[in-house]
Order: sequence, then C-alpha cells, then structure tokens
Amino acid sequence: MTQKAFQDYYPDEWAQCYGCGRLNEHGLQVKSYWDGDESVCTFVPKPYHTAIPGYVYGGLIASLIDCHSTGTASAAAYRAQGREQDTEPPLRFVTASLHVDYLRPTPIEGPLELRSQVKEIKGRKAVVSTTLSAGGDVCARGEVVAVEIPENMVFGK
Amino acid sequence: MTQKAFQDYYPDEWAQCYGCGRLNEHGLQVKSYWDGDESVCTFVPKPYHTAIPGYVYGGLIASLIDCHSTGTASAAAYRAQGREQDTEPPLRFVTASLHVDYLRPTPIEGPLELRSQVKEIKGRKAVVSTTLSAGGDVCARGEVVAVEIPENMVFGK
Repeated sequence: MTQKAFQDYYPDEWAQCYGCGRLNEHGLQVKSYWDGDESVCTFVPKPYHTAIPGYVYGGLIASLIDCHSTGTASAAAYRAQGREQDTEPPLRFVTASLHVDYLRPTPIEGPLELRSQVKEIKGRKAVVSTTLSAGGDVCARGEVVAVEIPENMVFGK
Repeated sequence: MTQKAFQDYYPDEWAQCYGCGRLNEHGLQVKSYWDGDESVCTFVPKPYHTAIPGYVYGGLIASLIDCHSTGTASAAAYRAQGREQDTEPPLRFVTASLHVDYLRPTPIEGPLELRSQVKEIKGRKAVVSTTLSAGGDVCARGEVVAVEIPENMVFGK
C-alpha cells in the first residue's frame, strides 16, 4: 500500500514501541490501515515466532492484537474529531486491558491478517474488537480497551 | 536458583516456544519455579522492549504472563497427579484465553517479578491468575485459561 500507516503518524517520542514503533529497529513494526470502517494489518511471522513447531506463538498474537488495536483507537479518535492524522495535537492510545481467545492453532506459514472494528469510542477511551486470520480461517479473537495517553505521563526522558 | 525451571522439563519438541523454549535462541526463555503454592518468574526486559520510553511494552507483559501461566499449569498438573516433572508422559499446556489488565505503566529498569496462583485445575484445563510487579508495585494482572495439548495436535514435523 502507498498510504501511510496509522503508526507512521506517531510523533518520534511515541514511535519507540517494540510492537509498532517505526523507530524500534528490534521490534515488530506493526502497520495498520483503514479498509472502510475496519482497520487491517498484515504480518508475516519470523520462523522463530513459534509456539510448538508449525504454529505461531500466542504472545506474538497478543502483541499484534495489542498494537493494531491501539493504532486503530488512535486513527478512530482522529476520525471522531474530523481531523487528519497529521494534525496537532497528536492522539496516542495505550492499553488498559487486553483479552485474547485462541480459537485454533495458528499456522506459521504465510501472512496473518488482523481486522478490527471500533466497538466504542467515547472521551479518552476506545474499545476495539479484532480477528486474526491465517489462510482465511479465524484463529484468534481479541478485545482491547485503549485509553488516550494521560497528559501527565512521564516519558522517561 | 539451582533447581530446574518448569520449562526445562519440556521435551525437545515442545521446547521451541519463542516465549519459554530453552531451544529457541531468539526467544525470551521465560523460567518459572515453585515458591510454596505460588509460582514465580523473574525477567529483565531488554532496553528495546519499550512501549513509550521508560516503560515496558504491553505485548511483552502479555507474553511473560502467557508462558509463565502455561508453565505453571503444567507443573500444577504433575503435582495434581502426584508425579515429578521428569516422569512420563509429559504434560504440556497451551493457552485457550489470555486476559491482562494493565494497572499502571511498568518501569523498564530492573527485574519484573511474576507470581501466579492456580485457581482451578480439573481434567485438561487449568486457570492461572498472575500478578506482574516492578519494584514491589503490582503493574499488571493476568488470567490465563490453559488446556493440555490435545493428543491429536500435529507438530508440523
């Protein structure tokens, strides 16, 4: 895709995340985009992202759902305000809670596709519901409650 | 500690997990031990395991809770059968569902301590409840429903 990912709009100080920071060279670099009212992310696991041989590690699945969902929350908040993602002030969400149901083992070959819907967005809170599929089969479902980063958050700088 | 970790008893074909496999050189190599009726795991995040600068990535927290919980489920199943962990047949659990509440930002300096209690173990299912602390403060709580690996699971070999 030629469009910019949600995560590519994050300011530099919020772009260090192991899951989705474009500036974290060790990280997963999750990239999320709108597809109508849904958001979509495609991810190709590394061979070492294994659980038992042949299947994807559940912690990776949780990580993908986490970052794709907070990215979706951010993009949805801009939409709710009628703003583009490159406008100030930036909106960045963190995870208050994460739930994942592992429905079946997720094969490690080929890309994983995550699709999310924003179930609720109100004030500083968003609830994002996600499916993770491989080869057209839904292998996991996730729900994330995301909250906008508090203004008093110290950034360790 | 000189005792063997729960994960060090896993047979080789189940020791490839990115989170806790002793044979996965790229992985986190989570190690869990009994401390009375609780299980404990200590983990030192890498500097790149960051969320926003200064704090631990939530996906790493989910991964640690995941592998520490399934390891605890395995060890608890041996205990329930009155068996040592080096006896046959091996017992290995996978995650059916994972829930994490992020209570406060988790500082990235210093070790993280996970402590789990087995809330339920019955048949092939175990429910494990976990706290993750940093510097004595509980930063996250997790609950994992773990199930013993089905005998018909194909291992991709």
